[in-house]
Amino acid sequence: MSDVVIAGIGQTKVGEHWEISLRELAFNAIRDAVKDSGGLKPQALFIGNMLAPNLSNQAHLGTLIAEYAGLTGIEAMTFEAAGASGGAALRQGYLSIASGMVDAALVVGVEKFTDKVGPEVDAALATTSDTDFEAVQGVTPASQAALLMQRYMHEYQVPCNGFAGFALTAHANGTGNPWAMYRKAIKPETYAKAEMVNDPLNLFDIAPNADGAAALVLTRRELLPTGFAHALVKVSGSASATDTLALHDRKDILWFETAGLSANKAMKQAGIVLDQINFFEYHDMFSIYAALQLEAVGFAVKGQGWKLAADNEIALKGKIPCATMGGLKARGFAGGATGVYQAVEAATQLRNQAGTNQIVNAKYGLIQSLGGPASTAISHVFERVQA
Amino acid sequence: MSDVVIAGIGQTKVGEHWEISLRELAFNAIRDAVKDSGGLKPQALFIGNMLAPNLSNQAHLGTLIAEYAGLTGIEAMTFEAAGASGGAALRQGYLSIASGMVDAALVVGVEKFTDKVGPEVDAALATTSDTDFEAVQGVTPASQAALLMQRYMHEYQVPCNGFAGFALTAHANGTGNPWAMYRKAIKPETYAKAEMVNDPLNLFDIAPNADGAAALVLTRRELLPTGFAHALVKVSGSASATDTLALHDRKDILWFETAGLSANKAMKQAGIVLDQINFFEYHDMFSIYAALQLEAVGFAVKGQGWKLAADNEIALKGKIPCATMGGLKARGFAGGATGVYQAVEAATQLRNQAGTNQIVNAKYGLIQSLGGPASTAISHVFERVQA
Repeated sequence: MSDVVIAGIGQTKVGEHWEISLRELAFNAIRDAVKDSGGLKPQALFIGNMLAPNLSNQAHLGTLIAEYAGLTGIEAMTFEAAGASGGAALRQGYLSIASGMVDAALVVGVEKFTDKVGPEVDAALATTSDTDFEAVQGVTPASQAALLMQRYMHEYQVPCNGFAGFALTAHANGTGNPWAMYRKAIKPETYAKAEMVNDPLNLFDIAPNADGAAALVLTRRELLPTGFAHALVKVSGSASATDTLALHDRKDILWFETAGLSANKAMKQAGIVLDQINFFEYHDMFSIYAALQLEAVGFAVKGQGWKLAADNEIALKGKIPCATMGGLKARGFAGGATGVYQAVEAATQLRNQAGTNQIVNAKYGLIQSLGGPASTAISHVFERVQA
Repeated sequence: MSDVVIAGIGQTKVGEHWEISLRELAFNAIRDAVKDSGGLKPQALFIGNMLAPNLSNQAHLGTLIAEYAGLTGIEAMTFEAAGASGGAALRQGYLSIASGMVDAALVVGVEKFTDKVGPEVDAALATTSDTDFEAVQGVTPASQAALLMQRYMHEYQVPCNGFAGFALTAHANGTGNPWAMYRKAIKPETYAKAEMVNDPLNLFDIAPNADGAAALVLTRRELLPTGFAHALVKVSGSASATDTLALHDRKDILWFETAGLSANKAMKQAGIVLDQINFFEYHDMFSIYAALQLEAVGFAVKGQGWKLAADNEIALKGKIPCATMGGLKARGFAGGATGVYQAVEAATQLRNQAGTNQIVNAKYGLIQSLGGPASTAISHVFERVQA
């Protein structure tokens, strides 16, 4: 099978984009990604989106965005797997290229939260959980994550503020990412004094819902335009896995089975082992998710994920740098765009374009986006290869 | 590239399934398809769904249904392209197998309309049009189709009741399909006296919204279980295309550009020409859609699609049999399940299992599902091959 490579990347700043519509947001990322690819002509458009049918009363985004981007005629469709929707679009874009059926594909993640407000957003987010058995009881993703964190702290005797390291690292890294929503570092005191949202989750344990779009152009290696200007990044592994949708149906709620399953499968396909991964873009929607991903993927033993953060081992110069461009916490959580943001950021690192946030000699990056509490996990291994 | 073949098919009766949930509906089709495949173990689940986030307050269907079907662990995600969502899932299932990354894939279309009522359903359906420029003006798919039909009748001087042939054929064929919602043939007088819904669309020009699920197991030819019990059906062509989302943005609103584009691409891949197609499963959401598809695909010249129906040439023994198991009109319109129902029905024909509706010596079937007024069209060519 021929190598699937990243030809172009593009992204909008994550934030509150009251002034532009969903289609404009997506277009801005597409324009930059196509330009960055040296002008490859995409034949297909794969959209990752989580909540537009509810938040923007707009389904059928593939056709909407293809038209607005001046690509009328090409194949286009939307992929949904809750918070992993962007990862799902990336995986399908990858398969379309790997199959030989498509030569150049645009993978776009887009989400617009600001079309609706508070309770409407909570209700929309709750549709990603098990509506009949979770949402009807009033469970929201945040209230559920609080229960998960409570249990974790109890089981593993995590001290108060034990999770601070995740937010500190994310915000430190956000300072170096021009596309991030939050670009100010925070101090341990800031975390310790933060407003409690869903006890024990405080404001800094929760990634902010925000608008954003990110885009990739994928192609096969031999189809890259001559004079391609960037270091070459290959999609070396791609995998997806599901667990029970409802948290209460799991044997062990403190084990993100899919995170391990999909990461191992992607690494196996890439022909590497965990030690070769130079950085990990996790799905820190809630800091407890980050801790559980670190454990299930194998960077920490069970119950010790939070310590990696507390010991500063997830920082840019740590043992396993995470959220290297700010993660969901500081870059912002743009719903179904998340997996594509992770991909753009990983490509940025592997191209050596990450500026002050650059991981030195990065060769392999692992990215993983989650739908719900790892009800879905989609993992990709990106690799820097010789041009 | 190795042949992608249909190993198993399954479907539920289309109708009003008040008594079972969306996940149960999907499971019933999955169970039958897996059994029909001789027990192949699917590694991936591709869901086509159009409106569950709105109609059932349930997103994240991939994981929901994988779990309910006892497939926890496998890859699963949802594909959306309005009415073409089932076709989108089929295409991605096809690509996953063609790429060699997945060995056996379940493609499932599922929709449940009866969780909501009248105006809520209309509002949900309107999200598939251009919300900012169409839906906000109060345009629904049916009211838009009425305008389209009005214009068509004016341009081509179609007589009153000129479209009757579409409903007559669909209902005649529905009598032979045990899974169809409506199984009674209708007479020309029934059509002529039917209640006007959106002038000139009468009750029989509109397919009924209904609940249903259909499923396929896809694999590569060499992976079929030994002793595979059915005639072999290959997916010989697969293509998808988009037009403007809003109808008013087209140069010619009476030309379904995507229907022709995607059908031609799929036939080219299959290495056949139009004359070789033995039957055509179109997307007769509205009878005017069927007429315009017949023209754009090339079975009739522009303005004459309705005549094929009026002259009985779309009947089972006509020049080009259409809606051979009842189509959307008589089988019922189960939203995002439509493209998968078409696939199941085409496989049934090519396996020679269509009973009284059997097309004699059928070798090639063309199926095409639409999102909106051909804003998206997804076409597949199925071929009966030697085992």
